[in-house]
Amino acid sequence: MSGDGKGDAVVPVLLSGGSGTRLWPVSRTSLPKQFWPLVSPRSMIEETVRRALGPGFAPPMVVCNEAHRFMVAEELLRAGVEGARIVLEPVGRNSAPAIGAAALLAAERNPDAVLWMMAADAAIADVPALHRALAAAVAAARQGLVVTFGMRPTAPETGYGYIEQGEPLPGLPGVCALARFIEKPDAAAAATLAASGRHLWNSGMFVFTAGTLLAEMERHAPEVLPALREAVAKRSEDRDFIRLEAEAFARVPSISLDYAVAERTGRAAVVPADLGWSDVGSWGALWELGAKDADGNVTVGDVLLEGASGCYVRSDGVLTAVVGLSDAVVVVTDDAVLAMHRDRAQDVKKIVDRLCAAGRPEAVKHLRSPLPRQGDDKA
Amino acid sequence: MSGDGKGDAVVPVLLSGGSGTRLWPVSRTSLPKQFWPLVSPRSMIEETVRRALGPGFAPPMVVCNEAHRFMVAEELLRAGVEGARIVLEPVGRNSAPAIGAAALLAAERNPDAVLWMMAADAAIADVPALHRALAAAVAAARQGLVVTFGMRPTAPETGYGYIEQGEPLPGLPGVCALARFIEKPDAAAAATLAASGRHLWNSGMFVFTAGTLLAEMERHAPEVLPALREAVAKRSEDRDFIRLEAEAFARVPSISLDYAVAERTGRAAVVPADLGWSDVGSWGALWELGAKDADGNVTVGDVLLEGASGCYVRSDGVLTAVVGLSDAVVVVTDDAVLAMHRDRAQDVKKIVDRLCAAGRPEAVKHLRSPLPRQGDDKA
Repeated sequence: MSGDGKGDAVVPVLLSGGSGTRLWPVSRTSLPKQFWPLVSPRSMIEETVRRALGPGFAPPMVVCNEAHRFMVAEELLRAGVEGARIVLEPVGRNSAPAIGAAALLAAERNPDAVLWMMAADAAIADVPALHRALAAAVAAARQGLVVTFGMRPTAPETGYGYIEQGEPLPGLPGVCALARFIEKPDAAAAATLAASGRHLWNSGMFVFTAGTLLAEMERHAPEVLPALREAVAKRSEDRDFIRLEAEAFARVPSISLDYAVAERTGRAAVVPADLGWSDVGSWGALWELGAKDADGNVTVGDVLLEGASGCYVRSDGVLTAVVGLSDAVVVVTDDAVLAMHRDRAQDVKKIVDRLCAAGRPEAVKHLRSPLPRQGDDKA
Repeated sequence: MSGDGKGDAVVPVLLSGGSGTRLWPVSRTSLPKQFWPLVSPRSMIEETVRRALGPGFAPPMVVCNEAHRFMVAEELLRAGVEGARIVLEPVGRNSAPAIGAAALLAAERNPDAVLWMMAADAAIADVPALHRALAAAVAAARQGLVVTFGMRPTAPETGYGYIEQGEPLPGLPGVCALARFIEKPDAAAAATLAASGRHLWNSGMFVFTAGTLLAEMERHAPEVLPALREAVAKRSEDRDFIRLEAEAFARVPSISLDYAVAERTGRAAVVPADLGWSDVGSWGALWELGAKDADGNVTVGDVLLEGASGCYVRSDGVLTAVVGLSDAVVVVTDDAVLAMHRDRAQDVKKIVDRLCAAGRPEAVKHLRSPLPRQGDDKA
């Protein structure tokens, strides 16, 4: 995004809190999907940061799990970022406290700072379109709106929440009123929503000023702010990291921004857009995103196919051969193998749950160094 | 088999020449399937040797690839065998030279010695039935017949050759004339053969005296014997191994016993039997042989299933999860993974061929120690 000439640069705020277990065995709690090169040779988080660099952008803030701090810092280095603020959560408290902390920190410098909140682990194919949508959103945010991005549906997805789009807002090109949020639908409802022409996927990206967010949070989720303010006030800060104070932060209720603010505020707006966006929430999504051979297969790494079709096959480890399977997912790491029908991609969680129940370390961490950077030349 | 009181003990001759590439990635040229615990916690060759131990049996002879000599010796030790003769082939020359060499060596001691020739890598479920069939075959062999075992078909297999059974031979209970050998059929022909009631699978097991075999070889495949006799005469022999002389053995034509003798001799007979026999020629065969769960899955090793049915899943390496696949084969070793539709089990060879063409070591050897003995508690 180029500078808009209207004032301060936009502050990207990346929330890096997910554990990504639906992408097991690659993604695990100790090394979740944002750190893996899944859609490109770069990690998801590096790609996300790179979409928010350049004129018009302030250095990003990243809110992450304490345990991931060095991996986040390393990815920011790789992206060439200077001056980022890495905010460490002592415990996970969902998105409202995470973005609230970022807003409090930003407001100390400038309450009118425009924050662009995004997940660290989504994919966006059309970056110029993203930056056009962002410019529209920033203009609306400067007028005090809480602006989300609504993705025009390309399929009747049941894995996303939906947004009903209202009338265009006068004087704000590309921005519409937001009629309502709709929970993740069942298949029949998703088909209706996707075909309606006025329903959009809820991308979870938002733009607002720090002041607007905090005011709306004060109004609609006042229980969040007292302990959060205390955790920010009592933070410890060194050259690399900002540590929210643990005891106070633990008292902050765990609540999503959608629930705390977005679904309640009277200031909601939406920018409808076609960005080639995906939350990369399953191996099936990675198959959708991948470059396919003539038989509809996507392969990553040391893979041989023979009579396979519609498969996603990824090896971050040993030689992997797939023969005569259709619509399968085969994912190989150094310490686990998953072979699955692509339609069952949501059931990976059942395997992870069983591994957790059995106390298996493969549920949460890689037993050998997965060295994801060595995947660069494979992805 | 108990002693039959008619003279010398039966000499088991195990041919251990196969490379078993259809069971890649477990079986490879350098460590083929006979050395793996595939059907039981014991290796295939140990199981085979154990079926030929006890009263009535002389110590076995094993004809094997020079490169496999210590593994063969180790498996014989594990089986508790004393006094075995391990005959090393400098190069592979198919089954006629292998059994011919064993016959020449046995005939030096006793031309009337009864040899029981068998592959080292087949499975037989019903050992008492095997020993009953063997007793019938031995009686016929002592009358100068070349006796094979014909397995009553349990399915229209296209992977086996067939034998047409003739009339029962008078005075030899359980032994029939052998009308003809039939090459591996196509699916339609296999269905006809399997349903006919008079066609049997060709097991490749034979019983004959050393003298009978050599006389029939002289008559029907005379080109085999001169160089073979020379290779045996010039052998070097130490405490553990008998090494056939390389230069002479290299001049022996490569030819199967079926082609050299069995299909040509006028002395052929067959013992029809139900032994639960399998040549374990594919992963599909191992699925057939394995103990199945309620959904028809066979698992070996560190395997988790979720909504799988009709699958064969084996890990000799890392944790392996299979979700929502039907009729699949998933085989995991330390340096390769195969995921395949069970109906495509014959296509493994295509993968191995491609790996060979690419100079990939995984085609022929294990990159890390596969430690098959550690599989004992998994199989």
